[in-house]
Amino acid sequence: MKHLRVITLITDFGHEGGFVSALKGVIFSINPHVHIVDIAHQIGPQDVFEAAFTLLVNYRFFPKDTIHVAVVDPGVGSKRRILCAKTSSGIFVGPDNGIFAPILDREKKVEVREVTNSKLFLPIVSNTFHGRDKMAPVAAYLSRGLSVKRVGPQLKLWKKIPFERPKISSSKINGHVISIDRFGNLITNITRDDLLKMGGRDNVTVRIKNHIIPKMVRFFGEVPKGRLLAIVGSSDFVEIAKNLGSAAELLRVKMNDPVEIVRKRHG
Amino acid sequence: MKHLRVITLITDFGHEGGFVSALKGVIFSINPHVHIVDIAHQIGPQDVFEAAFTLLVNYRFFPKDTIHVAVVDPGVGSKRRILCAKTSSGIFVGPDNGIFAPILDREKKVEVREVTNSKLFLPIVSNTFHGRDKMAPVAAYLSRGLSVKRVGPQLKLWKKIPFERPKISSSKINGHVISIDRFGNLITNITRDDLLKMGGRDNVTVRIKNHIIPKMVRFFGEVPKGRLLAIVGSSDFVEIAKNLGSAAELLRVKMNDPVEIVRKRHG
Amino acid sequence: MKHLRVITLITDFGHEGGFVSALKGVIFSINPHVHIVDIAHQIGPQDVFEAAFTLLVNYRFFPKDTIHVAVVDPGVGSKRRILCAKTSSGIFVGPDNGIFAPILDREKKVEVREVTNSKLFLPIVSNTFHGRDKMAPVAAYLSRGLSVKRVGPQLKLWKKIPFERPKISSSKINGHVISIDRFGNLITNITRDDLLKMGGRDNVTVRIKNHIIPKMVRFFGEVPKGRLLAIVGSSDFVEIAKNLGSAAELLRVKMNDPVEIVRKRHG
Repeated sequence: MKHLRVITLITDFGHEGGFVSALKGVIFSINPHVHIVDIAHQIGPQDVFEAAFTLLVNYRFFPKDTIHVAVVDPGVGSKRRILCAKTSSGIFVGPDNGIFAPILDREKKVEVREVTNSKLFLPIVSNTFHGRDKMAPVAAYLSRGLSVKRVGPQLKLWKKIPFERPKISSSKINGHVISIDRFGNLITNITRDDLLKMGGRDNVTVRIKNHIIPKMVRFFGEVPKGRLLAIVGSSDFVEIAKNLGSAAELLRVKMNDPVEIVRKRHG
Repeated sequence: MKHLRVITLITDFGHEGGFVSALKGVIFSINPHVHIVDIAHQIGPQDVFEAAFTLLVNYRFFPKDTIHVAVVDPGVGSKRRILCAKTSSGIFVGPDNGIFAPILDREKKVEVREVTNSKLFLPIVSNTFHGRDKMAPVAAYLSRGLSVKRVGPQLKLWKKIPFERPKISSSKINGHVISIDRFGNLITNITRDDLLKMGGRDNVTVRIKNHIIPKMVRFFGEVPKGRLLAIVGSSDFVEIAKNLGSAAELLRVKMNDPVEIVRKRHG
Repeated sequence: MKHLRVITLITDFGHEGGFVSALKGVIFSINPHVHIVDIAHQIGPQDVFEAAFTLLVNYRFFPKDTIHVAVVDPGVGSKRRILCAKTSSGIFVGPDNGIFAPILDREKKVEVREVTNSKLFLPIVSNTFHGRDKMAPVAAYLSRGLSVKRVGPQLKLWKKIPFERPKISSSKINGHVISIDRFGNLITNITRDDLLKMGGRDNVTVRIKNHIIPKMVRFFGEVPKGRLLAIVGSSDFVEIAKNLGSAAELLRVKMNDPVEIVRKRHG
């Protein structure tokens, strides 16, 4: 039995209106022997950063020959390019607006091309929906085994987005909140590796707004119900959470609010 | 490898409660070799018009042998019939309440039948969920190759819904808003073809409420950020939008509000 | 052609953040020849009861070899066990917090095991996302035909949840509201079988708050638009509904509010 490849979709289309389903119709019209997985469609309208972060923390759980299509595309119809990036962890198709930049920064071997081969597009291309008319069909052909060489010429440069790293010293890390999830957990830009550089997660305190969390825990249940905690989350980023509650609600934190991790003097 | 056909679902069930998944369970129980695609499930409760419009703008992107199941069914349990309509662009299964009428109006060759063959239904049929107990299994059998002849007798007449066409003269088109999408774009009932009948999209102004949009553009970026624009959208309907913003919010427009496109005197 | 099995997912992850898609990536990495069906992901955060009820009314519509994965898991990272329960209606994988208890109570033949075989887990297991790191891969291996014996030792006892049965006498049933759906229908804990024990649904009145519904109907259209009705719903539970409207809105009912069905004296 032939291997069924996966195409993922991440968009800001929401679940109304059938926009997402149009992408799927196009894909299955070209390759019915593929699985399509929705990563997220409730990305804030035109919020390239949110889409980039959501894809960053999820792509590595997919098969290595997955094709990831990202359609958060405020520049559609203008001269912004469409990228096709091949890495050893998957192929990425989407607008050149920085949406794949955090992934391309981390991946060792990347081959980035501009999607220009109009033979791969739908016969009629609209000016407002390149996700459906260009990106979905290109992804479908790639899932059938088309070489990335066929989509267009190689690029040396592509757009970045500000995905600021925390400031790390031997006794302190200064980061900020980059995502707030459905449970009210506050995801920071501080990674497990950042913590290791400062000597690990033992003997630290975490400060957010006026609150000081006296230590980092390994799981939520280490603190009583309703208490704040700091933890390396499932995506390898430090998170501030409230056990069985919403830290976002308790702390009234906004995106980009600062978070500080400090090594204790007498550990 | 056998061809995997597609069954699409459009309902007003929302994403809670698992109602949609029950349809999928029934379908996969009968035919596991099929793809199921969600078109939309957040159709307003019992809003047949919204479902009809959403399906209308999406069905043509699916493979021609797709089976589309629509369950927006306020008449369930009463004597309303269930339709199975075969066209050259797909097969449609759903209640006879007008939900497929705009598509059947456009398709050239249509064969419409009443679904009556109870051998195709689940063993126990509830009075409140024919989507699950009748429509889903019928669609699953059709996806296995069952002839539409087997579902029931042919019909000559079926329900229509008011899907009003705009009024077109040589200098003016009067239409109205028929859908508002997640981005706040206002979709009108004026199509690309309607515009062509009046001489095309050049040299026109668009009026909505007190606002006059001086010309129609080809893509959003033709106007500055925050400015209103009119465009033939990706579904071939004229849309009013705000570049990088929400026209719906700016204009406080409601469904059915009038939109007028006027040819300029001195083009 | 090989049979494509189904894995279902029910979680409280919502549709943002891509958490659900990570489960799917893990599953397809292990077994691409499977269908994944979303039952619901908007379960109230940590609401084990809502998830249990939603799964209870849906699992029986799936193929008998389906694997159901439930990730509503407030105890993740603590010592709560992970269960794998084999029944003649499907296999269930999820935390031992009562989420499968109503199903295991109903199924005749159940074999319940604790998931302990770490060879089946992802190479790195987080403390906060066992759905992704343990449950999803176990389900994927089971879908490839792995025997449940391989997941871990058999259990005699597992967690229950309060899923209170109504009080039934020869002339009266006292139950309560256990779910409110998107249409504002109020689902009670009174089943079709409970009604039969009291002599069936004829000649009864239904009382909820100050309202008395004079009889039970077979379908919504039996009462005029806007009128309250009581009906055995599609999940075999008695529901209070408003024809073409929302009973929840009209009655301002909350979860657990009492519902009484009384046999009339002179039927």
